Amino acid sequence: MTIRIGIFGYGNLGRGVEKAVNAASDMELAAVFSRRNPESITLESVGVPVVPAANMADWKDKIDVMVLCGGSASDLPHQTPECAELFNVIDSFDTHADIPLHFRDVDLASKRGGRISVISCGWDPGLFSLARLYFESVLPQGASYTFWGKGVSQGHSDAIRRIEGVLDARQYTVPVSSAVEAVKNGNTPVLTTREKHKRECFVAAAEGADKERIKREIITMPNYFSDYDTEVTFVSLEELHTHHSGLPHGGFVIRSGATGDSKHIAEFHLKLDSNPDFTGSVLVSCARAAYRLSEEGAVGCRTLMDIPPSYLSLFSADKLRSTLL
Amino acid sequence: MTIRIGIFGYGNLGRGVEKAVNAASDMELAAVFSRRNPESITLESVGVPVVPAANMADWKDKIDVMVLCGGSASDLPHQTPECAELFNVIDSFDTHADIPLHFRDVDLASKRGGRISVISCGWDPGLFSLARLYFESVLPQGASYTFWGKGVSQGHSDAIRRIEGVLDARQYTVPVSSAVEAVKNGNTPVLTTREKHKRECFVAAAEGADKERIKREIITMPNYFSDYDTEVTFVSLEELHTHHSGLPHGGFVIRSGATGDSKHIAEFHLKLDSNPDFTGSVLVSCARAAYRLSEEGAVGCRTLMDIPPSYLSLFSADKLRSTLL
Repeated sequence: MTIRIGIFGYGNLGRGVEKAVNAASDMELAAVFSRRNPESITLESVGVPVVPAANMADWKDKIDVMVLCGGSASDLPHQTPECAELFNVIDSFDTHADIPLHFRDVDLASKRGGRISVISCGWDPGLFSLARLYFESVLPQGASYTFWGKGVSQGHSDAIRRIEGVLDARQYTVPVSSAVEAVKNGNTPVLTTREKHKRECFVAAAEGADKERIKREIITMPNYFSDYDTEVTFVSLEELHTHHSGLPHGGFVIRSGATGDSKHIAEFHLKLDSNPDFTGSVLVSCARAAYRLSEEGAVGCRTLMDIPPSYLSLFSADKLRSTLL
Repeated sequence: MTIRIGIFGYGNLGRGVEKAVNAASDMELAAVFSRRNPESITLESVGVPVVPAANMADWKDKIDVMVLCGGSASDLPHQTPECAELFNVIDSFDTHADIPLHFRDVDLASKRGGRISVISCGWDPGLFSLARLYFESVLPQGASYTFWGKGVSQGHSDAIRRIEGVLDARQYTVPVSSAVEAVKNGNTPVLTTREKHKRECFVAAAEGADKERIKREIITMPNYFSDYDTEVTFVSLEELHTHHSGLPHGGFVIRSGATGDSKHIAEFHLKLDSNPDFTGSVLVSCARAAYRLSEEGAVGCRTLMDIPPSYLSLFSADKLRSTLL
């Protein structure tokens, strides 16, 4: 039985999901859904239709799992619940503070439709959440830390681009090495936002733009930059596109714990050449899990925390026990 | 509702489980079971009975989960199935090649008794198995490597102690740094046993014993040492007990994977001051999961691969979503 996947939204993440589906022997890409004019979209995959989002309901029985590839700020809060009534769905909703609300909305929609949904799949939230959960469960006494980077934050890059006089920009989130060293040595310091990460911005400004003003607007921007030590470097548009065109990311979760007098350290690291491609690959393994859950008759919303790890794998429980356990 | 835990076997691992149960707010240690004379055993815990293993059946309704703390070579293959018919059970069976057989035996026994069992809990098999499974699921194209150490292998230390003329010994498993570097750099070499790990042995010999013979017997011992580069250092019994009395261990799982042209590296590291204390703590979180499964009416054998991660935690799914996701 081949799992028929739909992709909703065809940006960087949608293309990452497409690659991962095409690499999975148990799946096929059934259709891509978009709010843009389908004529304007050329897929990597041959022979797969691009369907206007408005016609989504026609595909109700032709898609086993719909993978939502929109943004967390303005797309997913309404798109995931809308789709969840019609399809089994996967999303990568990553606004941590709003997860309980999003979970509730999607859970209700999935239950109305008798479907399964898995939200906040990806690496953080997602694999990093699992590391935090496992580490805390097996080392209840201790402290956990999450560091991100060095990597490109698309949200922060976008925020810089909205400043007047900015042609393009790329923002790297960088862990502060003194904080990383302290935590790796088994200390459990209390760290402020500023002590954990710094932000490096590469900005291409329009000719004649006031660079001092642009720099000031960046480093004082609330939520995005004002709580961090931020470095701004102006570069040409050409240099930006030559040296900063990738979307690498990564980071790590570390827990320093103790059992009685013994200390233990657990670490989970990711180093990713392409954040959207890796996230797409995680979403696809979650789509497999959602399909299995739906085959069992499960209904409602889940996260990776609720799903048996073996459900993500192409292989049977028997084979996993004999090869990976 | 407090989860009533039984410990079967009171060696290093049993003491580790005892510490972890006493640190868990949702559990209490109900009894320790031993094949030794109960009079010869003094628990850390006050007021907890030590019960002869032969009387185990009397405790059928007074233990929610029995944690088996015997060895994989000669204890667990028969103890876990025997207990599994009477109790929900947890073990740390770690003879990788025999896991499918052990799983079948325990599964049948649990089903006869209408109970749940979770085998091969710990860090390898256990947490490292989960890392291998998650990494392969989200990065299907790639290669995984597991390195152990630097840490004490109790099985290898025991093997040296059985050689004539040896008073005591301690064996450290050490990853070969050139192999570690190659893998961390994203290469996917094919590595032999000898290329991955070396073995360092500290041996206290009896006065007048033939050290050359002892050394030769160690480095040529099949299965244990003959496939490795092995270093043997003779030390006094006093030095052995002063400098090599701990049971540290650890290691890491790394996967070098790719999505299209992008490379990704995932790593999971453990650095443990005390192998039995940490393993005990993992077993206790698995006991919590087993209890939850049994409350749901689940029957039969499971491994960590089959268990939703949230079941290991003291906290509710709601709380986990809002704090750790």
